[in-house]
Amino acid sequence: MSSLSFSSLSLADVYRARQRLAGRVAHTPLVASPTLSARVGVPVYFKLETVQPTGSFKLRGATNAVAHLAESGVKRVVTASTGNHGRALAYAAHALGMESAVCMSSLVPPNKVEAVAALGARVAIAGKSQDEAQIEAQRLMREEGYAFVPPFDDLHVIAGQATIGLEILEALPDTATLVVPLSGGGLFSGAAFAAKQIRPDVRAIGVSMARGAAMHASLAAGHPVDVEESETLADSLGGGIGLDNRHTFALTRALADEVILLGEPSIAHGVAHAYREERLVVEGAGAVGMAALLDGHIERSKGPLVIVVSGANIDMTVHRRLVTEV
Amino acid sequence: MSSLSFSSLSLADVYRARQRLAGRVAHTPLVASPTLSARVGVPVYFKLETVQPTGSFKLRGATNAVAHLAESGVKRVVTASTGNHGRALAYAAHALGMESAVCMSSLVPPNKVEAVAALGARVAIAGKSQDEAQIEAQRLMREEGYAFVPPFDDLHVIAGQATIGLEILEALPDTATLVVPLSGGGLFSGAAFAAKQIRPDVRAIGVSMARGAAMHASLAAGHPVDVEESETLADSLGGGIGLDNRHTFALTRALADEVILLGEPSIAHGVAHAYREERLVVEGAGAVGMAALLDGHIERSKGPLVIVVSGANIDMTVHRRLVTEV
Repeated sequence: MSSLSFSSLSLADVYRARQRLAGRVAHTPLVASPTLSARVGVPVYFKLETVQPTGSFKLRGATNAVAHLAESGVKRVVTASTGNHGRALAYAAHALGMESAVCMSSLVPPNKVEAVAALGARVAIAGKSQDEAQIEAQRLMREEGYAFVPPFDDLHVIAGQATIGLEILEALPDTATLVVPLSGGGLFSGAAFAAKQIRPDVRAIGVSMARGAAMHASLAAGHPVDVEESETLADSLGGGIGLDNRHTFALTRALADEVILLGEPSIAHGVAHAYREERLVVEGAGAVGMAALLDGHIERSKGPLVIVVSGANIDMTVHRRLVTEV
Repeated sequence: MSSLSFSSLSLADVYRARQRLAGRVAHTPLVASPTLSARVGVPVYFKLETVQPTGSFKLRGATNAVAHLAESGVKRVVTASTGNHGRALAYAAHALGMESAVCMSSLVPPNKVEAVAALGARVAIAGKSQDEAQIEAQRLMREEGYAFVPPFDDLHVIAGQATIGLEILEALPDTATLVVPLSGGGLFSGAAFAAKQIRPDVRAIGVSMARGAAMHASLAAGHPVDVEESETLADSLGGGIGLDNRHTFALTRALADEVILLGEPSIAHGVAHAYREERLVVEGAGAVGMAALLDGHIERSKGPLVIVVSGANIDMTVHRRLVTEV
């Protein structure tokens, strides 16, 4: 990978993102895991995005994208998201003194609606599916001058997530293996890009849930494909990558040394391990790195090995069940 | 407090401690709590010492004290501790390439012994009480050339804990209220000292458990007194302050604007709140700040208000019971 280059994204973009994030997004801690280090025989660390103000790494990309739009004079931003990206956009816009709207279908549970509204966003309820929510977002763009902030397939979003890679390589310059949750590819390609720009021989491993892993299926097909969505404990990793994907598919294809798929029991095990052994509350998507390691998928990796623990936004009823039953 | 001065401790000591801590101890995140902010009507933040490598703030003081001893040519350090200070000493000594011994009685549960041994310390089991473990530590000092590192009543330990206050005031220069767990007073007096040196009108509130609060009883008596120890969920806050206390009693007396005592149900509530609402696993002692706020003790405080969340080292069987039953 020493000749890795992407005309679309540069390390300078990542440094610019970092300047935009300064003071708005947490420089998250890199914490050693003695338990997992003993298990694989190399030093294992967690990059704890769980302590971001909105409980997930998504704040990095959203903040960079919104701050970039603010520099261009944009006053209002919109997205269609029921989860971490919606929260992140609401928080980032509020912090930058901008209006935000988050479009959701009428089927989204009230607690998710309230979480976004509490962060100062206008919540636009429209239709009964994510597609209809997306149409409402387009209407707001067309009729009310909102700028759209995509959840992952956007260079400013990717550059924002890439600041994770910078922070990791600065804290641990000899990082050999990076284990990153893989969904739309914003986090994965950003983190892997920054890490490999600084240290080309870093091995980047993506981890997805086996149920509905759109990026994995797309990589196998050689182009973006749709997969059927199913319910998964790693719900933040669900959703397609877009048949018209412009950036994250190509980046992930170039940057991923390996992609691991996990079954639901493994993800449940990861969440329970995080709680019992690491004293961390993590969502399913945030636990996939630990889960992959516990499953023996990453046994022969070089160390130091860094696992990105992407978020903490799990339904606590589900969490309590996982940590008491699994 | 504008004329506050202590001949024994200066802000320069705290900055020197920070230099010794750099790269060895986490610069922990300051995270907003929307839930508690809404409850008290001022911005509330957590200073998350739970993410320290040994799971508690104790690593700061131990690292500063051990590094200072290393500068003086000391090669071996010892303490008598079954808990966070023992772990911290073991970790700090190992990181600095020094030998460490942690003395414990034979009644200490195996998991606590193993936790310290796993960090590279020699565990010296002696007698059936903490007093006998202390005598063993003195023997190691006398016969094997170990230097003793006290858990709190030591200026280098206090200066190390004080780096928390520096980090808080740097991240949030207008901090108005600081809520800190209070036991032997190393953390409390360190954090309050640094904060008030920078911003004299910061209000420093100490929180202890009602059962066996030695510092509170000593402040009331006007001099260090012993209290009967009882079992408490905030076990890290137990223990006396030493009848021959040299530093932390005087510092705490000068720096504490208020001391709050909490019953066991309040501490349990704090641990459960941390889990359910903040997605944090905290030990009883780490939850007392949140618990005091939830109990309505800190209703009329000025903001921003920062709660030091001191550690995560709780028996997970106890934790699971608290978060499912309380």
